[in-house]
Formats: sequence, structure tokens, C-alpha cells
Amino acid sequence: MNNSADTGTSKATGSVLERRLLPDNHEMSQGRLIIGGCDLLDLAHTYGTPLFVYDEQHLRSRCREALRVFGSGVAYAAKAFLCVAMARLVHSEGLCLDVSTGGEMHVALAAGVPADRLVMHGNNKSMSELRAAVDAGVGRIVVDSFDELDRLDALHAETQRKPKVLLRFTPGVEAHTHEYLLTGADDSKFGFTVSTGAAAAAMQRARASGSVEVAGVHSHIGSQVLDASSFTRAVAVIAAAAEPFEVDEISVGGGLGVPYLNGETAPTITEWGEAVHEACRQAGVTAQVTAEPGRAIVAGAAVTLYTVGTIKTIEKVRKYVAVDGGMSDNPRPLLYGSGYEVFLPRCTDALRDRVVTVVGKHCESGDTLVRDARVPSGIEVGDILASPVTGAYGHSMGSNYNKVLRPAVVFVKDGAAQLVVRRETYEDLLACEMFDT
Amino acid sequence: MNNSADTGTSKATGSVLERRLLPDNHEMSQGRLIIGGCDLLDLAHTYGTPLFVYDEQHLRSRCREALRVFGSGVAYAAKAFLCVAMARLVHSEGLCLDVSTGGEMHVALAAGVPADRLVMHGNNKSMSELRAAVDAGVGRIVVDSFDELDRLDALHAETQRKPKVLLRFTPGVEAHTHEYLLTGADDSKFGFTVSTGAAAAAMQRARASGSVEVAGVHSHIGSQVLDASSFTRAVAVIAAAAEPFEVDEISVGGGLGVPYLNGETAPTITEWGEAVHEACRQAGVTAQVTAEPGRAIVAGAAVTLYTVGTIKTIEKVRKYVAVDGGMSDNPRPLLYGSGYEVFLPRCTDALRDRVVTVVGKHCESGDTLVRDARVPSGIEVGDILASPVTGAYGHSMGSNYNKVLRPAVVFVKDGAAQLVVRRETYEDLLACEMFDT
Repeated sequence: MNNSADTGTSKATGSVLERRLLPDNHEMSQGRLIIGGCDLLDLAHTYGTPLFVYDEQHLRSRCREALRVFGSGVAYAAKAFLCVAMARLVHSEGLCLDVSTGGEMHVALAAGVPADRLVMHGNNKSMSELRAAVDAGVGRIVVDSFDELDRLDALHAETQRKPKVLLRFTPGVEAHTHEYLLTGADDSKFGFTVSTGAAAAAMQRARASGSVEVAGVHSHIGSQVLDASSFTRAVAVIAAAAEPFEVDEISVGGGLGVPYLNGETAPTITEWGEAVHEACRQAGVTAQVTAEPGRAIVAGAAVTLYTVGTIKTIEKVRKYVAVDGGMSDNPRPLLYGSGYEVFLPRCTDALRDRVVTVVGKHCESGDTLVRDARVPSGIEVGDILASPVTGAYGHSMGSNYNKVLRPAVVFVKDGAAQLVVRRETYEDLLACEMFDT
Repeated sequence: MNNSADTGTSKATGSVLERRLLPDNHEMSQGRLIIGGCDLLDLAHTYGTPLFVYDEQHLRSRCREALRVFGSGVAYAAKAFLCVAMARLVHSEGLCLDVSTGGEMHVALAAGVPADRLVMHGNNKSMSELRAAVDAGVGRIVVDSFDELDRLDALHAETQRKPKVLLRFTPGVEAHTHEYLLTGADDSKFGFTVSTGAAAAAMQRARASGSVEVAGVHSHIGSQVLDASSFTRAVAVIAAAAEPFEVDEISVGGGLGVPYLNGETAPTITEWGEAVHEACRQAGVTAQVTAEPGRAIVAGAAVTLYTVGTIKTIEKVRKYVAVDGGMSDNPRPLLYGSGYEVFLPRCTDALRDRVVTVVGKHCESGDTLVRDARVPSGIEVGDILASPVTGAYGHSMGSNYNKVLRPAVVFVKDGAAQLVVRRETYEDLLACEMFDT
């Protein structure tokens, strides 16, 4: 679980898309991009656009990497991207799932993931969410507040069950992109503050309560972190915060960043894990150390396909390329000013010699996908335009603003495409309408 | 249709909620707030939280005001808030509906609104959206680009129909909150730019094409505009841009702001309309002048009810009050830094002598509803917390992020509550999942 308010605003620096921004299993066929053995233009034709295309082996490969470096307690942070197929994939690869609401838990259970493989997060879990988690028998509840301890006491009185919990600590340090933001890191809606003594008080109370079994401590030190060394000091702070309590488990949460743009780099999951483990060794941690990668597993696995509908040149000002999606399938540019690349899968390696602004179809001037995007000058209406590294926080944060339908999702592998989430229909928009009143 | 990237970041200035931020038909009963004859605490109990509560008579009153000042061509901008009940209400009051996508058109038609009462917007309408609009016989299509004119030519060749259109002009001026932003106002994904000659070229082409019947010109000059005089110059620019073409209709779009916070004021719909008409008179406009209010009709009609779940005091830093909704039902604070007030409907007029930060339940540090909100010091877990002026761009921009369920909507009138949109269920989250693949 992490706080995804990252920013990635730097401009694209290269005129040809760097291949490493594409999913692992890509190849070219006469300039056309093939992912998982499937031609993107064929997928667009078959399934329509906008379309999320995930390279299944890329997902599995990142899961295996996380498992290798962190062990079987490692949890995929489902909030980055969750559907039934993804939950099944993650579980089949041996990872736990970090779910942060009753809704995420429901989807994971519906997918057949055993409850004991779920880690339940949330800064404001309701009594009914906690009851459902305890009834189902989730593996861990990450306790976030004294009010939640009250509710767990009440639940214990009702059910006699003692869920295994981690206490979320707020260690007053945050590893942010390339720097530590020490100031104000105590100022968080999440967790028990270490510096004020709240963390110690929570641990004491939880252990004395008899209502829960305290398995360990959870923390989270940043989001979209692109420098492995940034984790070193942060882990030291978490380790120091956890040390007095002699816990069996420490989760360092998520936070590993990914490159979105040409010229950006990020540690691999392995490098991240090794930095975490090394920092823990230096801090004398003997507890089992685990983590919750989300973005690092899914972001780079996907590309979004759009159809170019309208190209508008405003002389001496800007050229706008409007596609058939927008803030409803990728709100990150509007929310965080995040940057993305785009390319034409019909000529993936082409020189992108024009600078345009890629916008969506929403009635909202902020509905920009990429400001100052590089594209080949031959781009035209009807082209399929692709945006890579869209596997995290796009589908999951999507909306129906302007009653735009949420896209379909396909997994591709070995030349076969599997529709895992169907496109919404106009009728779906009416599902909650009360016509007869 | 407007561009809703407004900002309203000023802080709450008063310690008691100003009553004028509440829906028209409110009263107090022993301190408890009654809207449309319905006790808000009873509504929360009956329908659960989060809950959107709309004062139906407030909605009708604003529709009537818009109709009085602009006449029967005035269109409600559905993107601000659209459901079947709202579409029916607007139509029953004699307004047109501005729809901006095929999805909005589908909902309006499903509600029984005749197609000729619809105005079809969109910067990137697809061929299938245009075909559906022409087949249904919408009242006006607001043409936004040359590519759209191409598509309308193709449609005419296919159907022989000549839809009535307005051409959207971009006049190079934008009335923004309290000031004109002249620079860069040509830099828009919307419309035909006047200054470059694109507007004139589009008019010439559309009239010569034989594919459409040009009824007039559309423009839009700002969003969340709080100063009636701001419209004067902007309307003059639109009028000047339209003048050479001797059109029958000019739509000035939307843009009227509303007060969100204590201390803020905004023109009424009547004041706005009179300012527009006066500016048109001064500019010698003889065409029929109309407009598209959205926010001004719905924003103030609603309050959102939440349940307080967790209160966290971080000594010397901040007190967090977490509710059971958040960025999924009101993304405007995160998107635009927009400010809101909150209050306790159990003691609506109470002194709000504490400053807290109201956050949601999402796993996202940016999930803040009100930073530095004033609340009564007696606020506690289990309290129903209300946020007024949430009728626009909350429900419509809502998401299922973290698989949080989108709230129910009730209309209240004369002591009766009508559920018009039911709350989503966990099963709804699985509607598009392909289980068998």
C-alpha cells in the first residue's frame, strides 16, 4: 500500500521511443508492434479502443521477481490495478494481495484468492469491512488508528476471533523521488505516529487487548521512488521505530517507482529488495521483512491503445491530437501532472519529430493526456495511438465522467489475447438508475 | 458546456456555516437540518452514507430562473450532474439538455427526453456518436473541428439528413474567476479559433457544404466565474466574432460560478443573464441569445452526507477526520484544489471552533476533502458530517478507485425522499469481469 500522489512531469527527451518503456515481450514486425505475440493494430480492430493491453508474462515475471527477493509474504498492492484475472494471476504466482477496502477484498475473494492470502489495509475501515475481513479470515489486517483498535475490540467481543494484525507506523520520514522529505512526514492520515509516542501506545494497547494477535509492523516510505539509495535511510528509520517492539514481521510497504518517460530510470524490484534487505541487515533487523509492490509489477506491463479522432492545428500556438479516451481512463496527468510517452504502433521505431498535445474527449480543458508529446509527423485521423506504462492507476482510477464508457482490458500471451474485463456498454451506465420512481 | 478546471482554494472564513450555502428549502428543527422536509440524519439512517441529497425544488427553481432569463433554448449542461431523474426534471421544466458524449445522450434519451431537446457537444465526437445523434434527431450539434465537418459530410452522403448545427468559436478571451486571461486563450482543444481565421473558414465551409444547417455560433468564456461584469467584455468578443456571419443564434455557453465557501458570493442566474443580454444589446446582437448553465443549477442544490469513521490527532501537527467517502465521490479538491465547507447536521448552526482536515478512506495521501475545515469541537466518530454545494461534478466525476462503491442519490421534496440512483453494490464491481476466461 502506498500513497500514489507522485509526480512525473519531466518532458520526453528522445525523439524515438525507448524500447525499455514497452512491455517485456514485444517485438516488431515490419515496424508494427507485437506484444505477447499479438499485433496491437489487430487488437484495436478486434476489441475497439480505448483498450488496455497487458503483457501477461511481464506481469508474471515481475511477480516472480518480487517473490524471489521478498519471499512468500510479499503482497501485490491491488489498488494499482485489480480485476479478477489479475487477482488470480498474482495468487497463482504465490504472492499475497494487499486490499484496501471491502470492495477490493470482494473482488479478490470472488476471484478465488483464499482469504488468508489477503492483507487488509485502509485508514478508515468500517465496522462492516472489518467484520467481513475477520469473518473471511484474512491473513493480516494492517491496523491504522486507535478507532480501529476500538472496533477490533468490539469485534472480538462479538466473534471471539483474534485476527493477525500489523500496526501501521508513521516513522516521520518519507523517501520521495530523489530526496527525503523529512518535514511534515508526520502529517499523514495514515498510521500511528512514532515521534509522538502514538505508535508505542498502540503497540502496547494492541498486545494487551487480547483482541488481536500482533504479527508485526507496517510502514510506507514513499511513492514512485526512483533511487534505490533513497530506501536505505528510510528503512533505517522504520527499523529503529520497530526495534523496541521485537516484532516478527516488518513490511516496508510499497513505493518503488517506474520509468514513464524516455531518459528516466528506476531500480528493478530486485535492486529495491536488495537495498531494503541490506538496510535491514545494517539496522540489525531479525524480523521477516516483506513489501507491497504495486506499480512496479503492473505499470510497465501495459499499453493503452486509442484511436485518433480529431487533429486541430492552431497556427503559431499548438497542434492538438484528440483521442477517444482521456481523463476517464488515465487521470494521472490531470491529478499529478504526470508525464507519459505516446507512439504509433504502426511505426513504433519511427522518429517522433512533431510536438503535439494529446487530449481526450471530455468536456474539460484539463483533459490532457500528454502535453508536448512527441509523435511522428505522419500522424493522422484514424491512427491507433499507444501510450506505454499505463498499467498502474489508470484502469483503477478510471471514471465515467461525461458518461464515457470504461475500456476493456486484454491480457496477451503467446499470440493469444484474453478479454479479462469487457468494455462497458451504454446500458451499464443505467445500472443504478431508478426508472420507476 | 464549459471547462470545469476551476479553482476555489480560499479558506473558510467564518466559524458558523452561512445558511446561504445550503439548498433553498432548508429549515432547522432543534438544531437539526431539514432539507425538502426531510431530516438529514434520518436520510443517512435510511439510505446509508455517503449520500447525495438534492433539494428538488431548488433544482426546479434554478431551471425556471434560467428559462425566464434565457428562454426555451437554454440548455442544462448535463455533465455537471446527470441521471435519469435529473434529465426528466430538466425536461419537465422546459430546458434543453447539453450532452457531450454518446453516453450522456443515451442517458437523456433513456429518460424520455425528446432528441430535439438535446444539444450535442464534444471536441472529439466519433462517427458513431454523430450517427446516433443524427439518427435520433438531436436539436443541435455543436461542431468543434474540421474533422467533425468531414464526418458530417460523410454522414450526409449516407443519410441525406442535414442536422442543425452551431459552430463552436474560440474567441481568444476567457472570463476567469475575477479576471480576464487573454494570453493563451486561443490555446484550447475546443472550437474554431477566431483570430487565425479558422472560425470564418469553418463557417464558410459549413454553409457551402449542404451537409448541415448552420443555426448559429457557440462559445464559452470561462468557468466558475464569480463576477457578472466579467461576462461583459467576453460577450462583446463573442458578439464581434459572430457578427460577420449574421447568424440566428448565439450561445454564450456556461461558466457561471457558485459560492462554495463562507464569504464567497456569485451572481444569480438572473444577474448573469441580464449581464449577458446587456452586453449583447451593446454589441448590437440581434440573434437569439442562449446559454448552458450547469453548475449554477445543481451545485448548491445538494449536500453530501458522510459518516465519520476515524479521528486521528497528531500532537502539534493536525487532527484528521476520516469519512466513508472521499476522492471517489468528490475529486474536485484533489483535481483543482477546490475548497468546501463541512458541518454537522445535528447542530447545523453550531460554532465551528476546531480546525481539522477532512479526509476520505482511499489509499492515497491526496485523498483530502477539506484541508483546514472548521468543525464543532464536539465532532466524534459516528457523527454524520455534511458538505454543502456538492451537487456539481461530484457524482458525475466519481470513480470506483479502491473499489469504493459510488453513492446513492436522493431527491427530497415536501417531506418525501425519492431514491433516484441506488448505491452500487459489491456485485456491481464485477459487472464487466470475464470470469470464465
